[in-house]
Amino acid sequence: MIKHKAPFITFEGGEGSGKTTQVDILYHKLLQGGIDVVSYREPGGTRGAEEIRHLLMEGERDRWNPKSEALLMSAARADLIDRHIIPRLEADTWVLCDRFTDSTIAYQGFGHELGYEHIQELNHFTVGELEPDLTFIFQISAELGLERTALRKAGIHRFEHYDIMFHRRVAEGFEEILKKNPNRCVAINALLDIEMISEFIYNKICQRFSI
Amino acid sequence: MIKHKAPFITFEGGEGSGKTTQVDILYHKLLQGGIDVVSYREPGGTRGAEEIRHLLMEGERDRWNPKSEALLMSAARADLIDRHIIPRLEADTWVLCDRFTDSTIAYQGFGHELGYEHIQELNHFTVGELEPDLTFIFQISAELGLERTALRKAGIHRFEHYDIMFHRRVAEGFEEILKKNPNRCVAINALLDIEMISEFIYNKICQRFSI
Repeated sequence: MIKHKAPFITFEGGEGSGKTTQVDILYHKLLQGGIDVVSYREPGGTRGAEEIRHLLMEGERDRWNPKSEALLMSAARADLIDRHIIPRLEADTWVLCDRFTDSTIAYQGFGHELGYEHIQELNHFTVGELEPDLTFIFQISAELGLERTALRKAGIHRFEHYDIMFHRRVAEGFEEILKKNPNRCVAINALLDIEMISEFIYNKICQRFSI
Repeated sequence: MIKHKAPFITFEGGEGSGKTTQVDILYHKLLQGGIDVVSYREPGGTRGAEEIRHLLMEGERDRWNPKSEALLMSAARADLIDRHIIPRLEADTWVLCDRFTDSTIAYQGFGHELGYEHIQELNHFTVGELEPDLTFIFQISAELGLERTALRKAGIHRFEHYDIMFHRRVAEGFEEILKKNPNRCVAINALLDIEMISEFIYNKICQRFSI
């Protein structure tokens, strides 16, 4: 078992679910509350992981086959864990992460249909005994999520070129993860407004970690 | 099971073991014999896998942690399998490969001490049921192998910066693979001269595949 005192909290969901905004809000709330906290976005967060991110997020839709995609995501994750997540947790710093192992289950396991169990084996190789203490899963339909990303100013990335059926399977994947991990995972209705969601998340964290 | 008619033959061994020379000799012998054959060198062989190769082979020694290194190798391999190895075997073309899954066991499993079983799980995720029909394992001591690479004209790559203990563990790894896979693997004494080795390999192949 990885020994850590500070909480490790992950944020998961499909495209356009608003989780990135919520990671940012929570990060600043915790900082203002005097908590030592860091925030990462996957894939990325180390020099090597950012190089892998470029390979993954750019280029044409079929640049990678599903297995290579899952393995590249995992390679970036292993680097982030080794260089940042574990040292920070061991130093009693809270760690927030925008996407983690559940995204690999939802995107490559369900979206690309490599299978839940198959990706869990890969995740186990990558993270060992490290597991988030709490995971917020943002629920949104594939249609609405993609509509929201289309309105975003930032350029679209490779995953947004996958068809609607892919994104529906991703949404199903997140539902399955919620069902299988009722203690670790908390559902977030991504249709609520930003303030309601951020209050819900903050209250949940106060309860769970007694701050 | 992957159905294929043509043989899939891999060449494995530590640095400076001479396997790349032998892949080349065998490739041309088979071609001259009228056999439809292709040859790959890992990591690489597809546009994506070559991009991953740059990440893996260049830069400072500790650029990647052991798990990321194993995952990147596997990502490149999955791309090569999907785009070349399986389509070629299905089209009845012989496939020769300079390094394959055994190198990940020896280098990351033994060299970096991630463990045989642990890497076998990762290999299973990556290759599924695809297994080489025949594997030549080139035996050489770590010391002599590194001496030979030092004489090479080509620039040294990142793995050659690992210390002698790393390369000794790699050599042990290949011995262990030989022991565990007596039907698939054939030992090659890398100290013999090039012609003796190439004749031995060609004879072995004639026997095994009745050409």
